[in-house]
Amino acid sequence: MNAKERIPQVGVVVPFEANEAAESLKPLVELVRADMQAVNAIILDKAVSDVDLIPKLAHHLIDSGGKRLRPMLTIAAAKLCGYQGTGHVKLAASVEFMHTATLLHDDVVDESDFRRGKESARLVWGNQASVLVGDFLLGQAFRMMVDVGSLQALKILSDAAAIIAEGEVMQLAAAKNTATTEDDYLAIIDSKTAALFSAAAEVGAAISSRPQQERAALKSYGRNLGIAFQLIDDALDYSGDSARMGKSVGDDFREGKITLPVILCFRRGTEEERAFWTRTLADGEIRDDDLDNAIRLMKRHNAIEATIERARHYGDIARDALAIFGANPAARALTDVIGFCISRAN
Amino acid sequence: MNAKERIPQVGVVVPFEANEAAESLKPLVELVRADMQAVNAIILDKAVSDVDLIPKLAHHLIDSGGKRLRPMLTIAAAKLCGYQGTGHVKLAASVEFMHTATLLHDDVVDESDFRRGKESARLVWGNQASVLVGDFLLGQAFRMMVDVGSLQALKILSDAAAIIAEGEVMQLAAAKNTATTEDDYLAIIDSKTAALFSAAAEVGAAISSRPQQERAALKSYGRNLGIAFQLIDDALDYSGDSARMGKSVGDDFREGKITLPVILCFRRGTEEERAFWTRTLADGEIRDDDLDNAIRLMKRHNAIEATIERARHYGDIARDALAIFGANPAARALTDVIGFCISRAN
Repeated sequence: MNAKERIPQVGVVVPFEANEAAESLKPLVELVRADMQAVNAIILDKAVSDVDLIPKLAHHLIDSGGKRLRPMLTIAAAKLCGYQGTGHVKLAASVEFMHTATLLHDDVVDESDFRRGKESARLVWGNQASVLVGDFLLGQAFRMMVDVGSLQALKILSDAAAIIAEGEVMQLAAAKNTATTEDDYLAIIDSKTAALFSAAAEVGAAISSRPQQERAALKSYGRNLGIAFQLIDDALDYSGDSARMGKSVGDDFREGKITLPVILCFRRGTEEERAFWTRTLADGEIRDDDLDNAIRLMKRHNAIEATIERARHYGDIARDALAIFGANPAARALTDVIGFCISRAN
Repeated sequence: MNAKERIPQVGVVVPFEANEAAESLKPLVELVRADMQAVNAIILDKAVSDVDLIPKLAHHLIDSGGKRLRPMLTIAAAKLCGYQGTGHVKLAASVEFMHTATLLHDDVVDESDFRRGKESARLVWGNQASVLVGDFLLGQAFRMMVDVGSLQALKILSDAAAIIAEGEVMQLAAAKNTATTEDDYLAIIDSKTAALFSAAAEVGAAISSRPQQERAALKSYGRNLGIAFQLIDDALDYSGDSARMGKSVGDDFREGKITLPVILCFRRGTEEERAFWTRTLADGEIRDDDLDNAIRLMKRHNAIEATIERARHYGDIARDALAIFGANPAARALTDVIGFCISRAN
């Protein structure tokens, strides 16, 4: 019995709309096209199991048109460092599996009903299967890393796995706490989001045996890009344009998530406004027009613009981190990704 | 802020009662005593995080008096193979963390309220925290393995991680299905339980650079011991003595779990009896005296005795697997563990 035969081979990545954001991702997509085909083939191959439920559930998410931004970072970083082997492909697939496992567990933790514009796996197959298939994909990710055989890559990615989980627990502990500071929040996203971006870029250098400063540069690039990416994601959740990103506006609001736009609004607001945030996010008493109200407060306090400004700051750090590589197609493509992440909010 | 200072250092293993089962574990406990102190120290150290919730939740389970049987197997296998380094200690701690992570996720999946005689972590801190702290411990396990630096050990344990998750999904898919065959069931416990026993024993040989046949012998020993262990666990769930093992009688029954005693009863029973198993386990309609009824049916069909007999069969295979090592204290201690596992049911 070979489960592979029963799975339609539809693991293609949904193309971007031809907008500004997509334009700035184009150089990266072009740069990594051939290798990403190999990555996608491995992803399909390793999501297979004789246990039917595993490929079904895994493919529900894998086929749903994620950008595969993180594995593209690994491939591009390896190219930037002149890597000549084939290990970067398996490492990139491992990075995507780690990300997919995190999404499966996140949806259980957040009790999310939608992901990438369709029903979440936990809604279709239940929390139990989502937890276990997440565990399976994480196991497969480690198997692939071990196959590559670089202890340095293994160290980077296993560190990331623990740090991501730590960040998720931090976020859970901070949930509904409107007193969360901007620093607290940065620590959370540094762990839960930036750690994987950072590791994805750093492993590309680590397997290339390049000087330590190039590895450190890519680590810093990935980390700051990841922070910028998450901040823009937070901003999009309160902006009308986010529907086209496959995310519905107000998800974070309904889940009582304390993100930077909320933190800024809370601090910049009046007593009465703070009472509003406490009632809706901390106490979870949400009425029909509360999301509109929240968006109105965001506008009043320039919270979205300020969040995007903060994201630009981290984007700038990421850009400067790459400067040591000079001008070359891979460095340019990675630099353009920063623009892509920021311009998603425009 | 050092979370370690806030944790009482109570990670001691609860001593066994002086019964026959405990006696047969004694040689192993004696053999590994010094190394297990180091393992326990690492377990306490690596369950620490600045995120308060992580050590709190992790210690709830770590301090609750598990036997630490799996890490003891790793230490004993390394000793049996004459290993002289220190890597076995970290690998043993990794094995225990993998096990702990699995228990945390299992309790979420099974919606269990009790574990080792006290409230389950998910009941105290919620499903969300249990999923995430499980992920954290798995991440820490991989970090420790990477520290040891043996790619062979990494391969064995990452394979096990994926296979365990696969077994759990298999069990989920088979849940409440009274048509599960004995073969189906063996495939499930081979993955979900025996894979970690097997890996725990095999890594001890793998880091010792011993001939392939010794590694294969320990792998086979661990696997068959694990199957025997699980079968006895299944039998205990329908036997009055299981209270003293920190497990309440009837847990599997109430959760609708299809285990070997049930499979045998179902196949050996009348139409009317099969209807009983379908109503209680498949449909989940459990009335007050149904557990007593179930135990009565187990007795009528000798299902518990037959399950223990099956366990003895796998125990015999485990015993013969060790024969190539000849007579020495480590081999004897590992052989006695088989007796321990089986005699738990007496």
